[in-house]
Amino acid sequence: MELSPRDPDWETRVRSSFAAQKFMDFLGAEMTHLSPGGVDLELRLRDELTQQHGFFHAGATSSIADSAAGYAALTLFAAGFGVLTSEYKINLLNPARQKTLLARGRVVKSGRTLTISKADVYGLDDGDQVHVATGLFTLVSVAGMKD
Amino acid sequence: MELSPRDPDWETRVRSSFAAQKFMDFLGAEMTHLSPGGVDLELRLRDELTQQHGFFHAGATSSIADSAAGYAALTLFAAGFGVLTSEYKINLLNPARQKTLLARGRVVKSGRTLTISKADVYGLDDGDQVHVATGLFTLVSVAGMKD
Amino acid sequence: MELSPRDPDWETRVRSSFAAQKFMDFLGAEMTHLSPGGVDLELRLRDELTQQHGFFHAGATSSIADSAAGYAALTLFAAGFGVLTSEYKINLLNPARQKTLLARGRVVKSGRTLTISKADVYGLDDGDQVHVATGLFTLVSVAGMKD
Amino acid sequence: MELSPRDPDWETRVRSSFAAQKFMDFLGAEMTHLSPGGVDLELRLRDELTQQHGFFHAGATSSIADSAAGYAALTLFAAGFGVLTSEYKINLLNPARQKTLLARGRVVKSGRTLTISKADVYGLDDGDQVHVATGLFTLVSVAGMKD
Repeated sequence: MELSPRDPDWETRVRSSFAAQKFMDFLGAEMTHLSPGGVDLELRLRDELTQQHGFFHAGATSSIADSAAGYAALTLFAAGFGVLTSEYKINLLNPARQKTLLARGRVVKSGRTLTISKADVYGLDDGDQVHVATGLFTLVSVAGMKD
Repeated sequence: MELSPRDPDWETRVRSSFAAQKFMDFLGAEMTHLSPGGVDLELRLRDELTQQHGFFHAGATSSIADSAAGYAALTLFAAGFGVLTSEYKINLLNPARQKTLLARGRVVKSGRTLTISKADVYGLDDGDQVHVATGLFTLVSVAGMKD
Repeated sequence: MELSPRDPDWETRVRSSFAAQKFMDFLGAEMTHLSPGGVDLELRLRDELTQQHGFFHAGATSSIADSAAGYAALTLFAAGFGVLTSEYKINLLNPARQKTLLARGRVVKSGRTLTISKADVYGLDDGDQVHVATGLFTLVSVAGMKD
Repeated sequence: MELSPRDPDWETRVRSSFAAQKFMDFLGAEMTHLSPGGVDLELRLRDELTQQHGFFHAGATSSIADSAAGYAALTLFAAGFGVLTSEYKINLLNPARQKTLLARGRVVKSGRTLTISKADVYGLDDGDQVHVATGLFTLVSVAGMKD
């Protein structure tokens, strides 16, 4: 697995692209880790993010998993290539009823066109950690798309 | 495939559970179709729902697909059983840059414990319709969980 | 969705590539339908294809689903491009204990690099038809790979 | 995660169920590791297992991944419960053109009804190891089904 960034400006680029994702700001997600091939995002529980039983909605859980997986991929893209999610699959392992969700996106295979990332989401609660979800993501690098 | 609701109050139950999903209200999703085994949701584009290129974020697209698929399953559940998403997979087919997203959730197989639904998401724009995403969802019926 | 073959020799190419899949011959799969964007494969039950309960092994079911989905994609590829499966997901809906499996692969979205196909597998038994599996597949077109 | 077998006879049960999978014998798969929550299977390349380019067919790769993931789950089932695959997703990371495939199935979450396993498949060739595939599997425990 190639974990050397091809773009010397990868860090600035990933941070500014994440800052431009209005949906992440709307949810309240924050980037808490950034390294070549790895991005962590955190999201605090608020009423607006819940489903009918008061847990994080699977859509909220998946949204930060998708962004973490996608930006982990982008850390390794050459300059001038943008990132789009082609597909993903996620298993929801336990109810997400903790105070904070932590999504860990990590690159599994970095290719020229396709990158495969995984994301694991943990619920954090006063020192406890519950494995809430695990997923696999295919990201496409698109030439000429600004990111 | 069994498409006869087991709960005579299925319609009221699905509508009130959907109304209790604060995340759907936060996104702005509306239920525009409800039948045994089928739920449609619509979502209008707003800045808050976009990713870095101005398209609907994959997380927003997936969120309404998940709720449409899950509530399609719930229409067929017996009274006293709640619905949780166990897993799903989604392929993002085309950029979601239309004014409105329409997610069509339909039951593929209704079982006692597990229900499989599919969801197709279309982008609607002045009469045009683009197939934006397609997914498969496994829903679990949980005894004693209010829904 | 573009369903016009780009290669005038698509039919010969798909049939000869399928004939070159020794694994399909080993399982005993036969191509029973071929059209632009669509391939059907059939597989008759034999002891060698079963799991521990005497049903078709999920691996056998998935194998013909994968080949049906992949060759459906190949029908639309330009000459000189080969097909590889990038990823797939499959839901096993009912036990596959019928005499024959029929896998229907159909293109959902045909792109230059990525094609998304779906496959549905049915168990056939003296006129009965059971929906055994449904899946979504991402196929990659690879320049310079013979197919 | 609960990794204590509930059935004192788990080892005998898993080995004899695997021996009863005629499809695994047909492919030539062997169990090379067995522990609570973990099963490894190996498969040597033969012409009968290849696709049109001479690589292991994605169906062969997936078949051993599925059996490894499923038997990893079965190691933790109570006596009297059988295992069925409900669904899975697999990403094919690199061409599988090595001499031997090694599939590592590991339990991610062990539940009463649903178990989530992952499987990673490696291609082994004279000391080299290539990550060929990674997947996520949902297994169902079925009361009264012999395994």
